[in-house]
Amino acid sequence: MIAFDTILQAHDRIRPYIHRTPVLTNQTINERSGAELFFKCENFQKIGAFKARGGLNAVLQVAQNNEGTAITTHSSGNHAQAVAFAARQVGMPAYIVMPRTAPRVKKDAVLGYGANVIECEPTLEAREAGVLDVIAKTGAVLVHPFDDDRVIAGQATAAIELMEDAGKDRPFDVVMAPVGGGGLLSGTSLAVHYVSPTTRVIAGEPEGAADAILSFRSGQVEKAPYINTVADGLMTTLSERTLRIIRENVAAILTVSDEEIIAAMKLVWERMKIVIEPSSAVPLAAVLKHENLFAGQKVGIIVTGGNVDLGKLPF
Amino acid sequence: MIAFDTILQAHDRIRPYIHRTPVLTNQTINERSGAELFFKCENFQKIGAFKARGGLNAVLQVAQNNEGTAITTHSSGNHAQAVAFAARQVGMPAYIVMPRTAPRVKKDAVLGYGANVIECEPTLEAREAGVLDVIAKTGAVLVHPFDDDRVIAGQATAAIELMEDAGKDRPFDVVMAPVGGGGLLSGTSLAVHYVSPTTRVIAGEPEGAADAILSFRSGQVEKAPYINTVADGLMTTLSERTLRIIRENVAAILTVSDEEIIAAMKLVWERMKIVIEPSSAVPLAAVLKHENLFAGQKVGIIVTGGNVDLGKLPF
Repeated sequence: MIAFDTILQAHDRIRPYIHRTPVLTNQTINERSGAELFFKCENFQKIGAFKARGGLNAVLQVAQNNEGTAITTHSSGNHAQAVAFAARQVGMPAYIVMPRTAPRVKKDAVLGYGANVIECEPTLEAREAGVLDVIAKTGAVLVHPFDDDRVIAGQATAAIELMEDAGKDRPFDVVMAPVGGGGLLSGTSLAVHYVSPTTRVIAGEPEGAADAILSFRSGQVEKAPYINTVADGLMTTLSERTLRIIRENVAAILTVSDEEIIAAMKLVWERMKIVIEPSSAVPLAAVLKHENLFAGQKVGIIVTGGNVDLGKLPF
Repeated sequence: MIAFDTILQAHDRIRPYIHRTPVLTNQTINERSGAELFFKCENFQKIGAFKARGGLNAVLQVAQNNEGTAITTHSSGNHAQAVAFAARQVGMPAYIVMPRTAPRVKKDAVLGYGANVIECEPTLEAREAGVLDVIAKTGAVLVHPFDDDRVIAGQATAAIELMEDAGKDRPFDVVMAPVGGGGLLSGTSLAVHYVSPTTRVIAGEPEGAADAILSFRSGQVEKAPYINTVADGLMTTLSERTLRIIRENVAAILTVSDEEIIAAMKLVWERMKIVIEPSSAVPLAAVLKHENLFAGQKVGIIVTGGNVDLGKLPF
C-alpha cells in the first residue's frame, strides 16, 4: 500500500517541474448536470496531460538513486511524452518503444523532447519485446505507464491539488477520474482516502474498453469484451496492482458510450472554451448520464489531458 | 475624450456581472516568438467574449438612468449575445436585429438569453432600418457595437485587468488587440494611455478587412479594399469616434493574412489548450510575422473570444 507520505514526497519531488493547473467551474454545465462541478485542468499540464506527474516522479527517483543511466517505456500516447520530458529534465537518454502505426505527430513530440523512438509492430507483445531489447542493449530502467508505485504516487498528486484548491471549505461529495490502466484512478483513490475519507471516488469508463468494470466486480483482471472507443487513452487493461487499490478505494465505475463521450467533450469545448481529449470527457459524460446519482453534489473531475489531433476531431 | 475615471467607473459597474478572466502564458509560444507573451483570456468571459463588458456598461446605465424600457442593437456576432445577456441582467426586453443568414447557433444563443430576434436582409442598410423600426415601435435604446463611449469604456476594462494582473512589477512594452470597428482597440489604447503611458498599443488587422490601417494613415474613415477573411468578428469599419481615439493612442496597425491567422489560432489551440476564435489570433499572428519588432519584449494580448462553430473549423 502506497503511504500518504509517499504521495506527499512525490508532490515535493515533482513540484518544480510541473504546473499548478487551475480548477475551473462552469455555470452552464452545472445547470445542465444539476451538480456542482470542479474541473482540475491537467490539459494545461506539462506535455498536455497529467502523465507528466507520474513520469517525473519515477524518472527523478531513478536519477537520484542512481538506478540506471537511461530510461525506457512503451507507449503510443501521453506516457511516451511524459517519460521523454522527464528524462530530459534529468539529462538522461530515453528510449521510447512506439508502435509503427502511432501518429507522426506523437512520434515528433517524443523526438522533440530529445528522446529516441524505437518503432515496433502494433501489438502488446512486440512492444514488450522492444522494451526488453532496449534494456538488454542499454541497461535502461523501465518506467511502466501504470503498473508502478512511483507512477501511481505521482498521478495521485493531481487529486491532492484539486482538494487543496477547491475542497477546503466543504469537502467534495465525489471525486472522479477516467480509468484505463488504472494509474490515475488508483492514485486518485488513495489521495482521496488519505485527505478526505468521506468523499467517494467514482470512475468513468468507455463502453468500448469496459475491462475495469468487469475486474472491479470479479476481483480478477478481466479483458474488455471488445475494444472500440474514441477515448484512445483508456484502451489498456488494469494490472493486479491497480485493481487491488481500486477495489479498496473506489465506490463505483460507470460506463458511457462514445456518443455520450463526444457530446460531453463538445460541451466542454463550447462552454468552457478549453481543449480536452476524449478520455477527459468520460467522467462528465457519466455525470450527465446519471443525473440522479450526482444531483446537488459537489463533484471534482480530473480533466486528464488536451492532446488531440485537430485535423481529426470526432464532431 | 473618455476620462480615466469613466473607465474605472465602468469597471466598478460591470464587475459583479463579469468574470475576472485569467492571464495565461505559454513557454513554447514564447520560445517560438522570441517575445514574452501574456494572454488576457476573454474567451473565458461571460458570453464567451470581451463584448460582455461594453454591452453591460451601456445597458446598466440605460437601466440606472431610466433612459428607456428596452434595448436594441444589430449584430450577427458576439455583441448580439452581449446585449441580450446584459438586458437580461437588468430585466429589460432586448430586440436584436440579425441578418437572416446568421448561423442558427448564434440566433439560438441570443434567444437563450431571453431576447427577441428580428431577422433582416444581410446588408448594413437593412440592419440599420431594422433597428430604426424597433425604436419606432418600442422606444428601445440603441446600444451600438462600437460607436458609443459607454461601450468603449466597458471594453477598456479588459486592458485594465491585464495591466493589474501582469503589468505591476514591470510594465508591458506592448499591449495588442485586434481591430474591427475599433471599440476594443480604442478602449484598450485609452486604458494603456492612462495606466502605463510608456507602453505602446499595437493592433492586428486581417488583410481581408484592412480598413483600419488605411484610415489610420489618412485620418479619414476608409473602406477596406475587399472583405474576405476568416476573422469574422473584424469585418466592420471604424467610426469617426473610434478612429480619432486610435490615431491619438495607437502606435501601429499590422496586417496579417488568413493563413497566418489560422496558423496562430491552431498554435494556441494545440499548445495552450484553449478554444479561441479566429479574430483572437490576429495579434499573435502579427507577433509571429514580425519577430524583429517584438523580440525580447513583454507583450500583452487581449484574446477577444472563443465562440467558434466546432463543425466548421478552418484547420
